[in-house]
Amino acid sequence: MVKAVSARAPLPHLDDAVSKLRALLGERISTAQAVREQHSTGVFYSSNDPPDVVAFARSTGEVVEIVKICAGHGIPIIPFGTGTSVEGHIAAPLGGVSLDVSQMDRILAVHTEDLDVVVQPGVTRKALNTHIRDTGLFFPIDPGADASLGGMAATRASGTNAVRYGTMRENTLALEVVTADGRVIRTGGRARKSSAGYDLTHMLVGSEGTLGVITEVTLRLYGIPEKIAAAVCGFATLEGAVDTVISTIQSGIPIARIELLDDVQIDILNRIAKFDFPVRNTLFMEFHGTDASVREQAEMVQAIASDNGGGNFSWTTQAEERTKLWQARHDATWVDKQAYPGWDVWATDVCVPISRLAEVVLSSKKDAAEAGLVAPIVGHVGDGNFHMLVMVKPDDPAYLARIHALNDRLIARALAAGGTCTGEHGIGLGKVEHLYAEHGDSMHVMQAIKQALDPQNIMNPGKIFRPAT
Amino acid sequence: MVKAVSARAPLPHLDDAVSKLRALLGERISTAQAVREQHSTGVFYSSNDPPDVVAFARSTGEVVEIVKICAGHGIPIIPFGTGTSVEGHIAAPLGGVSLDVSQMDRILAVHTEDLDVVVQPGVTRKALNTHIRDTGLFFPIDPGADASLGGMAATRASGTNAVRYGTMRENTLALEVVTADGRVIRTGGRARKSSAGYDLTHMLVGSEGTLGVITEVTLRLYGIPEKIAAAVCGFATLEGAVDTVISTIQSGIPIARIELLDDVQIDILNRIAKFDFPVRNTLFMEFHGTDASVREQAEMVQAIASDNGGGNFSWTTQAEERTKLWQARHDATWVDKQAYPGWDVWATDVCVPISRLAEVVLSSKKDAAEAGLVAPIVGHVGDGNFHMLVMVKPDDPAYLARIHALNDRLIARALAAGGTCTGEHGIGLGKVEHLYAEHGDSMHVMQAIKQALDPQNIMNPGKIFRPAT
Repeated sequence: MVKAVSARAPLPHLDDAVSKLRALLGERISTAQAVREQHSTGVFYSSNDPPDVVAFARSTGEVVEIVKICAGHGIPIIPFGTGTSVEGHIAAPLGGVSLDVSQMDRILAVHTEDLDVVVQPGVTRKALNTHIRDTGLFFPIDPGADASLGGMAATRASGTNAVRYGTMRENTLALEVVTADGRVIRTGGRARKSSAGYDLTHMLVGSEGTLGVITEVTLRLYGIPEKIAAAVCGFATLEGAVDTVISTIQSGIPIARIELLDDVQIDILNRIAKFDFPVRNTLFMEFHGTDASVREQAEMVQAIASDNGGGNFSWTTQAEERTKLWQARHDATWVDKQAYPGWDVWATDVCVPISRLAEVVLSSKKDAAEAGLVAPIVGHVGDGNFHMLVMVKPDDPAYLARIHALNDRLIARALAAGGTCTGEHGIGLGKVEHLYAEHGDSMHVMQAIKQALDPQNIMNPGKIFRPAT
Repeated sequence: MVKAVSARAPLPHLDDAVSKLRALLGERISTAQAVREQHSTGVFYSSNDPPDVVAFARSTGEVVEIVKICAGHGIPIIPFGTGTSVEGHIAAPLGGVSLDVSQMDRILAVHTEDLDVVVQPGVTRKALNTHIRDTGLFFPIDPGADASLGGMAATRASGTNAVRYGTMRENTLALEVVTADGRVIRTGGRARKSSAGYDLTHMLVGSEGTLGVITEVTLRLYGIPEKIAAAVCGFATLEGAVDTVISTIQSGIPIARIELLDDVQIDILNRIAKFDFPVRNTLFMEFHGTDASVREQAEMVQAIASDNGGGNFSWTTQAEERTKLWQARHDATWVDKQAYPGWDVWATDVCVPISRLAEVVLSSKKDAAEAGLVAPIVGHVGDGNFHMLVMVKPDDPAYLARIHALNDRLIARALAAGGTCTGEHGIGLGKVEHLYAEHGDSMHVMQAIKQALDPQNIMNPGKIFRPAT
């Protein structure tokens, strides 16, 4: 949550590149202020550093040509899907071309027998699930926004289902990528496992556009479970809720979703979105399986919850009610913003080993209270991942400084616990220093790879790495 | 299965390096012919290219010093665990130092609450499971041999449990690695997910020692299931057995093991290892879960098998009998060798999307018959991965040429089906050309990474990549 416009000199060969892009794309390039700003303003973090140009590609071939033009003139390329990333990934601190792939939105192949699908990068997660709804299969990864699948791969996104189904790391089988030299490479394959050479797919998933532009994604799909049941349970204490999560995971119960919403968040949801949950620290849960297996899982988790001060489970198996429940969870940020008109939200994103979750959540909540900050907590706690949705008072640098301090303490605590500064949001512009703190000497290796694959530093420059000195 | 001794000039600065290594390690270096040969002779593939020296390290610090000495003199380093790899990974075609880490065999931390463990690279999979047997947890990955965990990470190994628990790719959380410049890096962490920078852990898992020496591995563990039941079922046809596997996977049944042994392999097992299985194409299966869930899974798979010409399931829930069953599966190669005294075995290793499994297995079996080759089939068919254990007649180049042709056809067929030339054995010396056929232009990216991280090409040179021209 840093708003700043960098003072930078115009790129020397921009006009030349723009004419070539216009010759290639015709009406599909834009230098309009509004379009450029829309392409640099993500969620949470906004740098206000717009690109010089926005180019809309419709094919891998066009991406290749755009990359070649930019490479020929040393001009940065910032890949853009839906613009819903949260750490300034789409900002253009060094200017350049925002390469919008949202029009590459075709589903290229659905292999129902092999439980996989091949999509262009601009297909969104909801569009994919709509397209395959008659196959009996679904794609589980669900970040809050209806993000593009290319962007989700680029940021190694996850969401509420990751505790059971994994993240984009586990669910991306193969990629097509245009590298900085304009080469088209294909990584991975459709086999479920392979020991054939370096795992470039995993290296590119989460590389945030700094090594190339993703032009195709092959993803795993899953059978829609025979039975799906969702439940809500309030707890006497935050500790009780978190301990329920810890015991559930340690017992190996294959729960599909287990999300924490603290009492502050529940209160806001009730007030703004007209729910009537008891105002307690609450778990939203979902169980997938056969009838018998869902019943068994539910009984085990109810017993654990009851040992930890949990109330009765309120159940729903109706698709419509379940959708409403999970939409409420996904909408937390927007509801919080409505509760504080004019305020922004800054979402933290640490993830820790599950045994350390209670201690990290509780001390951070105490920190927020002591700093006088409003910071509802939501989280994918089954993974050890949670967000403090810290409300940002407008135009108050002292208030912002308190948030920075809170986030720094939170991350330091997570790293000391063996965790990570970001469970699913990525580094972007916002967490570069935290990344160096987390990874130490291995940053040299990341940097060597970046240098080898993008020697001109034209691929989403300024993200992940410190500026060259 | 290529036996050849390369004619190569001695390394120029070898004597100098050896004196420095001796000063560092004392008795723990060896230039004895027998030790050198033992360190270059893996399973299946044997190049007979021994290293010049074998160095036994006992700590990360010693690995650093060894790497620095070798780097200073341009001398190749070939990491060595138990020597059970199968594609010539431990051979030394350019000479150099075999860096034996088998004495780095301590289990550094068992985090039962977080279901993970930190080990030195020389710990073997069986030693790990023995060590943690009282915790209620286990480590599932089981290549045939009692391989070292460092080696298993380096080759991205898997085994019979991968269909449920994944491979070393899914189960390696973090690594400590000494890179070619003698730097110690730590990749990954103990959090269950992270979006913090490039996924170096996944890039290093499966890199076969060509980017660095693994000195520590953090692995996932799993709770020992409440109930484990194993079953054997023979089928009227090979197609029926394979179709049973395909339907089981497509139905999303969380089967823990589903292994094919064809009639040829069953016959040999009966004759040599004194089993009395009906001589049919047979599935060995295992179900993990609660009592109820195991019963449910078993009923579903029995119904599928019965639709596909399967006979009655023969069940066992006794630990001792299960161990005997899986030992028989793991011992297939050794039993086959006993059946053909003096012959060798060459194991193929393709992996294909499950929908293509039947066609690839059946045509390859037909190929083998037409070529007059003895080639029992075993396989982790739930992953789409199977091995033909082709018997190699001694001293018969024409026979060997027929095997080469069989393997080439098999791999071409797997690649055409969207599969891979190696599901779990890796590339080593044996599959370099197949890797290029599989990955095309992305080999440039792998090569650029190799060049960036090991510019002298001292890390296991000759493996994965074609020699520089």
